[in-house]
Amino acid sequence: SEVKLLLLYLSTDNGLVESLQSCPATNPSMLNVHLVPHTHDDVGWLKTVDQYYYGDRNNIQHAGVQYILDSVIDQLQKDPARRFIYVETAFFYRWWRQQSQSTQRIVAQLVNEGRLEFINGGWCMSDEATTHYSAVIDQMTLGLRFLNDTFGECGRPRVAWHIDPFGHAREHASIFAQMGYDGFFFGRLDYQDKARRMKTKEMEMLWRASESLTPPLADLFTGVLPNGYNPPEGFCWDQSCDDAPIRDDPDLEDYNVDEIVQKFLNAAFYKTNHIIMTMGSDFQYENANLWYKNMDKLIKYVNALQAKGSKVNVLYSTPSCYLQELNLANLTWPLKTDDFFPYADDAHDFWTGYFTSRPALKLYERLSNSRLQTCNQLEVLGGPKSKSGPFGEGDSDTMSKAMGVAQHHDAVSGTEKQHVAYDYARRLATGWAHCEVLVRNSLAVLSGSEAPRVFCENLNISVCPLTESSHKFSMNVYNPLGRTVSWPVRLPVNGSVYSVTDANGRAVDSQVGNVFISLKCTCYIYDMKSSCLLPLLSVRWFHCLSPHRNMYQKSESFQKNEVMCVFVLFGNYRYNASAGNNKESRQTSGAYIFRPNSSDPFVINKTAETQIVTVSSTVQEVTQRFSPWVSQVVRLYEGHRELELEWTVGPVPVADGLGKEVITRLDTDIKSSDYFYTDSNGREVLERRKDYRPTWELKQTEPVAGNYYPINSRAYIKDDKHQLTVVTDRSQGASSLYNGSLEIMLHRRLLYDDFRGVGEPLSEPGEFSDGLVARGRLLLTLSPPDTAADVHRPLAQGMVLQPLLSFQDGTPSANTKLEFSGLQTSLPPAVHLLTLSQWDKDTALIRLEHQYQAKESKTHSQPVTVNLQKLFSTLEVLGASEMSLGANQWKEDMNRLQWNTEKTSKPLPLSAKDPSPWEVTLNPMEIRTLLLRVRQL
Amino acid sequence: SEVKLLLLYLSTDNGLVESLQSCPATNPSMLNVHLVPHTHDDVGWLKTVDQYYYGDRNNIQHAGVQYILDSVIDQLQKDPARRFIYVETAFFYRWWRQQSQSTQRIVAQLVNEGRLEFINGGWCMSDEATTHYSAVIDQMTLGLRFLNDTFGECGRPRVAWHIDPFGHAREHASIFAQMGYDGFFFGRLDYQDKARRMKTKEMEMLWRASESLTPPLADLFTGVLPNGYNPPEGFCWDQSCDDAPIRDDPDLEDYNVDEIVQKFLNAAFYKTNHIIMTMGSDFQYENANLWYKNMDKLIKYVNALQAKGSKVNVLYSTPSCYLQELNLANLTWPLKTDDFFPYADDAHDFWTGYFTSRPALKLYERLSNSRLQTCNQLEVLGGPKSKSGPFGEGDSDTMSKAMGVAQHHDAVSGTEKQHVAYDYARRLATGWAHCEVLVRNSLAVLSGSEAPRVFCENLNISVCPLTESSHKFSMNVYNPLGRTVSWPVRLPVNGSVYSVTDANGRAVDSQVGNVFISLKCTCYIYDMKSSCLLPLLSVRWFHCLSPHRNMYQKSESFQKNEVMCVFVLFGNYRYNASAGNNKESRQTSGAYIFRPNSSDPFVINKTAETQIVTVSSTVQEVTQRFSPWVSQVVRLYEGHRELELEWTVGPVPVADGLGKEVITRLDTDIKSSDYFYTDSNGREVLERRKDYRPTWELKQTEPVAGNYYPINSRAYIKDDKHQLTVVTDRSQGASSLYNGSLEIMLHRRLLYDDFRGVGEPLSEPGEFSDGLVARGRLLLTLSPPDTAADVHRPLAQGMVLQPLLSFQDGTPSANTKLEFSGLQTSLPPAVHLLTLSQWDKDTALIRLEHQYQAKESKTHSQPVTVNLQKLFSTLEVLGASEMSLGANQWKEDMNRLQWNTEKTSKPLPLSAKDPSPWEVTLNPMEIRTLLLRVRQL
Repeated sequence: SEVKLLLLYLSTDNGLVESLQSCPATNPSMLNVHLVPHTHDDVGWLKTVDQYYYGDRNNIQHAGVQYILDSVIDQLQKDPARRFIYVETAFFYRWWRQQSQSTQRIVAQLVNEGRLEFINGGWCMSDEATTHYSAVIDQMTLGLRFLNDTFGECGRPRVAWHIDPFGHAREHASIFAQMGYDGFFFGRLDYQDKARRMKTKEMEMLWRASESLTPPLADLFTGVLPNGYNPPEGFCWDQSCDDAPIRDDPDLEDYNVDEIVQKFLNAAFYKTNHIIMTMGSDFQYENANLWYKNMDKLIKYVNALQAKGSKVNVLYSTPSCYLQELNLANLTWPLKTDDFFPYADDAHDFWTGYFTSRPALKLYERLSNSRLQTCNQLEVLGGPKSKSGPFGEGDSDTMSKAMGVAQHHDAVSGTEKQHVAYDYARRLATGWAHCEVLVRNSLAVLSGSEAPRVFCENLNISVCPLTESSHKFSMNVYNPLGRTVSWPVRLPVNGSVYSVTDANGRAVDSQVGNVFISLKCTCYIYDMKSSCLLPLLSVRWFHCLSPHRNMYQKSESFQKNEVMCVFVLFGNYRYNASAGNNKESRQTSGAYIFRPNSSDPFVINKTAETQIVTVSSTVQEVTQRFSPWVSQVVRLYEGHRELELEWTVGPVPVADGLGKEVITRLDTDIKSSDYFYTDSNGREVLERRKDYRPTWELKQTEPVAGNYYPINSRAYIKDDKHQLTVVTDRSQGASSLYNGSLEIMLHRRLLYDDFRGVGEPLSEPGEFSDGLVARGRLLLTLSPPDTAADVHRPLAQGMVLQPLLSFQDGTPSANTKLEFSGLQTSLPPAVHLLTLSQWDKDTALIRLEHQYQAKESKTHSQPVTVNLQKLFSTLEVLGASEMSLGANQWKEDMNRLQWNTEKTSKPLPLSAKDPSPWEVTLNPMEIRTLLLRVRQL
Repeated sequence: SEVKLLLLYLSTDNGLVESLQSCPATNPSMLNVHLVPHTHDDVGWLKTVDQYYYGDRNNIQHAGVQYILDSVIDQLQKDPARRFIYVETAFFYRWWRQQSQSTQRIVAQLVNEGRLEFINGGWCMSDEATTHYSAVIDQMTLGLRFLNDTFGECGRPRVAWHIDPFGHAREHASIFAQMGYDGFFFGRLDYQDKARRMKTKEMEMLWRASESLTPPLADLFTGVLPNGYNPPEGFCWDQSCDDAPIRDDPDLEDYNVDEIVQKFLNAAFYKTNHIIMTMGSDFQYENANLWYKNMDKLIKYVNALQAKGSKVNVLYSTPSCYLQELNLANLTWPLKTDDFFPYADDAHDFWTGYFTSRPALKLYERLSNSRLQTCNQLEVLGGPKSKSGPFGEGDSDTMSKAMGVAQHHDAVSGTEKQHVAYDYARRLATGWAHCEVLVRNSLAVLSGSEAPRVFCENLNISVCPLTESSHKFSMNVYNPLGRTVSWPVRLPVNGSVYSVTDANGRAVDSQVGNVFISLKCTCYIYDMKSSCLLPLLSVRWFHCLSPHRNMYQKSESFQKNEVMCVFVLFGNYRYNASAGNNKESRQTSGAYIFRPNSSDPFVINKTAETQIVTVSSTVQEVTQRFSPWVSQVVRLYEGHRELELEWTVGPVPVADGLGKEVITRLDTDIKSSDYFYTDSNGREVLERRKDYRPTWELKQTEPVAGNYYPINSRAYIKDDKHQLTVVTDRSQGASSLYNGSLEIMLHRRLLYDDFRGVGEPLSEPGEFSDGLVARGRLLLTLSPPDTAADVHRPLAQGMVLQPLLSFQDGTPSANTKLEFSGLQTSLPPAVHLLTLSQWDKDTALIRLEHQYQAKESKTHSQPVTVNLQKLFSTLEVLGASEMSLGANQWKEDMNRLQWNTEKTSKPLPLSAKDPSPWEVTLNPMEIRTLLLRVRQL
């Protein structure tokens, strides 16, 4: 569509060698055993990412990534047949920076020759249950860009590789497909599913990962690895393993070559003529010599038997080379259309606890995503001065990397040790500190005022020193969404009477209430009126000036709330956690596993202390206190269609010796039967059915835990007439165990480790008490099913990208530009501006997304077109090149492997085309990734 | 004295670089911290030597030497400043054989450049308390020869390095000095001694290790390492350690360079301007990158502070380079003349149990030495057909290596795990199996008869299938000593009447007695007559033919036994072992540590079942049965000056929950006061005094264990008139706790580990019962002190080098040569033939030893001369070149560093010189090592 912009290769010696062309030769008449040397390097888990990188705190776990890469590079040089794959760019990037130029040249050569191959290649290997697609795409982009910048085409990962995550989301598969991956391998799936697949030879399949996108756009070849991600039993030659090395000195007592070879041949007995063997595991290859020396011998001695008629051929390989062989086989593969949740590794071992584990970290990660998007946008809109301006040096990279790390499958998942959880949070805070400078600089550019501004991080606990001490302050609001929203603001103040005006000097309705014994007051600002609405990518000012009060104005966009025509009972319950003393299984509830000790939850308190507060005519508020550690505030805003449920849980008492998992349950008269719906990574919605899996006959062994699914932004139940949708502020676990009921797990505090490695009970300490207090919001909407998406889609995006508030003492100076909008006009309702970030000096990356699924909205589930040249108010778009979703390949260069699959009975969606080079048409659920050449106007 | 024989260098590229010339530059105005990267690789301990080499059984201990050497060689190549020392040739040899030529070339280059330096260089790092000097010299020679053959002069170790052995023998220091070492470093010494030495700056000294040899022949510069053999606290960067790595990326949270550097500078505060820091420990450097990467940074950042005025200079170094700096300092060093036994690391932690631990292994090792010497001698005497003759391929190498491994400080010491002890024994048995073929071949050559012969390994338990089944058999006896001995033989037979004749057909007195309920009979052959004496290196035949009997002849050499004019009470006692429940200390008795739970031993039984058996007029035998598990036979042979005490102990009962340590105690009226005497590695004798150390004021905290010393071949007590000497058949612990009393620990069975790493209680299983039965002999002689050595010196050598018996069914064929002697004549009484072994095709190595100390014998403590050309009966000596004791350097090339020491008040011994090039004069305790060019006559 436009001239291609700079492709950012490090020039790596002579020309690019296609690494797939360098795949090792196989033998078509033999069983080819592809040994795939690999390491699985958690970007934080038992240790922090820094500790893992340097090999610090080895008393916790022996692991040092710097040494892994040192060692592997040394060993690869010893024999051109040897291969290695590397996965986590967060680590590789750090290592690369510390290498000499000569080492960098050697590594580049190894990459060009296919001896070192990057697989997956994101900043981390993301969790699939608790991540939001926005952050997943960002972290993949971050890693893939480093590889592309550094190694060019030979550094582009061909294969997605999620060998450890605890269940697999369909949206992840869709994202990988759109990023151009040729295939996907993983290690963990339900033990019943695995047994069936092994029996029916369905360990490898084609995953059709979207019901909206036109195949093969979201089709992904998917393989289940035979040994999880470990080597076959007895063949672990890492320094961390105790398996016998190959002892091939016949002078020695312990000569064992024959025995080992025989054992391997037994292990390698499979029906197809290619098999992949993962030779590695967690943080292995710190001393790669041990692995390679023994694998060299294994290959030598096993293949030597070919001369005696053996039909086994062992070779060093990579997942891409293995995949290439499968593709060449030209078979028809089974089709998969649902997902791989929940994951159970035994009858009473459902990994459904981590959907909710560490609710505060999960919220902080989600808020940080919002902040990062804001930071990215303001970096583009503010121009070069954003990074180096009146407030110093700021950047979005630190936050990008912190968010990249936080997507890891032991980060936002909540399955890390406590000290590591603190480290993730600290990184996000540091990231934000860097962004804050950038945002200050950018806002200074956009407003023309360099007056200092502060950000109040602790508004959720009503702390903001400036607003609490100043009699006259100004609030600046930035809306990172591509459309207007309204947003309630609550500020702690010291006075009791304030007047609030907007940028134009018009009064804004507000309400001051007495909340604290300290006599601090809170100034509520309900921006209901059109003049108070936050425009797209906009900056807007409000001024709070005591001693005026009651400046509330009715919103022009006021809508009468729909009558809640179903009866909804809000209940707070707890499950008591299994302590592992159960006769059926020793499994406890822990960071990963959810296992209640009975299927019926206990009600926290049948009666609540209830206080109905009508703050003003615009909001009704009911405070319910169920117990000293469970309360909620129910709010209904005038002009809003949703009911807000603000829950506060903790410190969860455990003095009775029982861990507890607290849920909120909504019981309605909706005739939902056994069905309910949950989103996948915040995008497409999957149908769930109690005690049922679409692809195999489930033997349900955990009636509660076995029916939990992750929700990232929403869940709903429905019948013909009504749909009750709950939009969440973070990832949580949810289920529907009764007709008309929807339950969401809010918080967990447990007393036992659950034997999956973390080695700690999930019992988060609080700041002032013995257990963490978590607070959050659920937004409930009730709609007819066929219009429900029209409500919950924008509601959820508003929850994800929240306005950023900043404050100044006094009134902005006279020359301050009080209003600014980055977009020329609001985006069409179906279009979400997923990404706007600076790429290089003169380029910006944008992602435009159709935020509706096919068929879910009569109004919006239609193709929609955006004109790129009419998008920004301050940027001229000089050129646009479409890229893969991961932004590491031109769209037109994408040439994925093709696979044959079973015929499907469902009608396949069709795509509309772009009407012109400058006009981008989005089909339902489509994301278009574009590199724009821009000039500041 | 003669043309030099082939010096056996592998030609290593261009010329030899003196590795000492390649020592790193130091800074004379600064404190120079010599970092010495090293690994301590036990030749067996918790795992067998093979398991350690390959890295097998890592579940027991993570250790794989093949990988250590792989990794270090890789890392040394990365930076010429990096250095490494390697110590244990048993491992290095094995690794070297598996390397490609190109790797071998690289390694040779590293050696030539001083970057890889061999230190110590014996086959193993020998134990010092329980080894015999003969085997120690052999194992050192084995290792040093490999290094010399492979690397030439640059491979010659300059420094002896016994960083782990648990106490240090003076004889070891003497051996090292005679081998040409410039210095000696060790890690362990008594904690009180160490505290004193640190205070008085006597951590480095000159050790005068012989009272007989003319200084500086046995002078050895000796240093105690500051941190044992470990790195300073906090600086262990091995994969097996958990210390923090240096994190020098300022972008990281955990940047710690400043803190680490400061900590190091604190640790490096010493008064001299050179200090050695051992950077390594047990089996470290399997992943050498971790060490070097962090040491590189340490050096970089510490030395960077010099620009800011720091006076600390850190460098990679080696013990020889450090030693060279000390020598250049030209200081006067304190003089040390006693030894470093016993070793205690705390008040109740005396490492005196291992002197006796595993008595059966200790005996088997000693017997194996005798067999190896026999094997070596017969390889020379039998010529080339010995190794490849009628009985197949035989060799002495296997036995040499098995013995080399057995000298390790966790082998014969008895401090290894049980499965490893079995492995050492198995190796010795395999070694003997190889030697047996050689011996068969050689005896076939020497006797002219290829008739098959058998060796009866189990005569000590009266098992020999041939003699038990045959009515007519012949016995062949080989005497490996350089002089005639008489030796009692006892054979199990089936008949009750036998006639015995010697090679000349003359009757030999014998005695058949009923010993077993099985009605097997035993034919006793007492070779008392001159015709029955075993000549030097001789082969002699006896024929046993039933049904004659009582063919006993009185020996011509009959001497009336001296009247035992002192009262000797033989008592068997036991100490009960401390179980660690003592209020003063939790220390238990274990494989290393001896700690009785009370200072008074318990008598096993006050009354013994005693049976006096007079077998014949030539032997009186008393059998005493103290308990079901302790008995002894006391024998007095006519014509012999010694009383034989054959003890049998075990299975030691432990059902009462108490470990037990069994001693035999000889209580006499000798007025020994607090003094007693013990030998050092079977050679020179040291005076011991109860509750006393010659070099510091002892605070005695363990009245029994703190007075135990190792004996290798003898101990004695004496007063003006009498000396009671006990000659042992193996290494044991001994003490004298009362005036006139001498006690020897025979056997130990314990119920607790003693926390020194072995992780097992020392409770050896028996073959048929729950505990090992041990049997052994003590020879007691009583003499006036000034003639005692004339008795105990030859008696002890006869115990060490025992005749080898072999058997044939029937009578040897007519053409069999029935007598042979390898020496032309008996050696002078003072001279012991320590070594006779094949070196190369036309060369043999011999060691001639003066076996008397200066002044201990009026008759023998004089210089004595041997004519090399008149030595052998079947070999012509064409040339002789004297070598260092380790046979890796020409004597004339030896040029050891010279050291100044305090003046000594003792008169220094003087040496007599050789009268002619062919005549070798031996001064008391001198060993002359000669490479002979020989031709078979």
